[in-house]
Amino acid sequence: MSITVVGSVAFDSIETPAGRRDRCLGGAATYFSLAASFFTPIRVIAVVGDDFGPAEEAVFESHSIDTRGIERAPGKSFFWEGSYLDNLNEAKTHNTELNVFGSFEPKIPEAYADSEFLFLANIDPVLQRRVRQAMPQARLVAGDTMNYWIKDHRPALLEVLKGLDLLLINDTEARMLAGNPNLVQAARAVLALGPRSLVVKHGEYGATLFHADTPAIRGADLRVPAFPLEHVVDPTGAGDSFAGGFFGYLASQPALTPAAFRSAMFYGSVLGSFAVERFGTERLRQLTRPEIDHRFALFRELTHLD
Amino acid sequence: MSITVVGSVAFDSIETPAGRRDRCLGGAATYFSLAASFFTPIRVIAVVGDDFGPAEEAVFESHSIDTRGIERAPGKSFFWEGSYLDNLNEAKTHNTELNVFGSFEPKIPEAYADSEFLFLANIDPVLQRRVRQAMPQARLVAGDTMNYWIKDHRPALLEVLKGLDLLLINDTEARMLAGNPNLVQAARAVLALGPRSLVVKHGEYGATLFHADTPAIRGADLRVPAFPLEHVVDPTGAGDSFAGGFFGYLASQPALTPAAFRSAMFYGSVLGSFAVERFGTERLRQLTRPEIDHRFALFRELTHLD
Repeated sequence: MSITVVGSVAFDSIETPAGRRDRCLGGAATYFSLAASFFTPIRVIAVVGDDFGPAEEAVFESHSIDTRGIERAPGKSFFWEGSYLDNLNEAKTHNTELNVFGSFEPKIPEAYADSEFLFLANIDPVLQRRVRQAMPQARLVAGDTMNYWIKDHRPALLEVLKGLDLLLINDTEARMLAGNPNLVQAARAVLALGPRSLVVKHGEYGATLFHADTPAIRGADLRVPAFPLEHVVDPTGAGDSFAGGFFGYLASQPALTPAAFRSAMFYGSVLGSFAVERFGTERLRQLTRPEIDHRFALFRELTHLD
Repeated sequence: MSITVVGSVAFDSIETPAGRRDRCLGGAATYFSLAASFFTPIRVIAVVGDDFGPAEEAVFESHSIDTRGIERAPGKSFFWEGSYLDNLNEAKTHNTELNVFGSFEPKIPEAYADSEFLFLANIDPVLQRRVRQAMPQARLVAGDTMNYWIKDHRPALLEVLKGLDLLLINDTEARMLAGNPNLVQAARAVLALGPRSLVVKHGEYGATLFHADTPAIRGADLRVPAFPLEHVVDPTGAGDSFAGGFFGYLASQPALTPAAFRSAMFYGSVLGSFAVERFGTERLRQLTRPEIDHRFALFRELTHLD
């Protein structure tokens, strides 16, 4: 089943203890699409500027990602500059230029209208809601958000949450959204806002899956650690790659069973672990499905009793 | 097989968002002993003062813990006062009084001489080494340490590490000991200092087990998340309870197989999760083996694909 994703396609300048890259292809929709493309056909809705050329287009095409929904607008693409010099777990933002993304009006190609899976990456909740409403056929709708929308655009975000089946956010966002420092309590509060399922990402420590009907004694449905890596080059896009691996695997399954959600957590973690091994999208571009399956098997051994 | 543990038996005054307790029984050897006592006979070596009375003695006796190695010295027991008001993951120390612990000279009762398992809790590495040398029959020796010894008593600590089979420390300590921020690389460096196995505890995020012969591609032998808890009352003693559950389970097994080490990680995590549910040792005192086994089964479901 194909997934339609709406979100940012951008250029990033990144500095980490491993070095620096200027204006490499990035953005949540890019990482999500590349990671998910190993499992299922992907269609992107985004806006880019004149600086998005054949080289960038080729990255999507090489993974058979449908780019008919990537609008070209006069001006420059969204640009982000950040560093992780002191702490690989937290980016320090030096510069953000919205450029053409500042007036983004998502346009959904007719050809995308039969996507049964929809991912609303981290953008203005007003736009997330508009896209969701324009794709009524979507039967599993997942979304991401961030502290900025939680803090300053709460009413619009709450409207989006009502229409989501699945929310993927990180620890800090979950606690902020719920106003509760305990993760289990925060998860319950977030699920009460609409989503039937919630994935909370813990960065280098893994992720936790909650369902609205998880028994209280269990706290959560599934918790996976992160794959231990000897070389972390660039954490940018790890969360979006997790989301792509998770949702891509789910969309590739014949039925949305609890077991499918559980396996999806491990695939999400695997894709997140690959993403950080090189700068930007370098590792995801070269990744192969056999490498994914090999690491999935290793990861299973690493986390299971037998 | 019995375990002999040497470490602190203390009184703690603790404040957390859930409330406050004054002068409750604590200390690394106390938490370790209670947690491990559910699996195997425990013998303690420690020193206490006049304030250690029948009520405290009864806590050990009710778990059939051998206290013949707890020396009574004139003066007061080790006392620690701390709070976790802003952050449940990190204690803020307000007061530490070593008292009789300041001149602790571990004395090993004859009756302990056949213990094949020895746990050197976090004390001066000079004393850890002395106890290890006085118990040559011990065939599995595990130890803990902390930033103070790593920073200011490194030569003595390095001597201890040479004689350890297993080291249990936290993230920060592993990185500090190795001088390397990457956990996988840090683990390899620590294992090169002596121990054949290393458990790195990640607080609320679980723990990772490394063996000297773990294949490089895998990064670690096993990684467990932490059991998600809806109510964390007091984090004091969580790490020592993990160590007790881990080492206690291991000592109860007929053979020290890789599978036994892996199960021990899950038991460690389970005991750590119980410890934080009430103040001080309250939860461990009332805990039962069926409760442990029930949570172990839940934890397995929560972390395994099938």
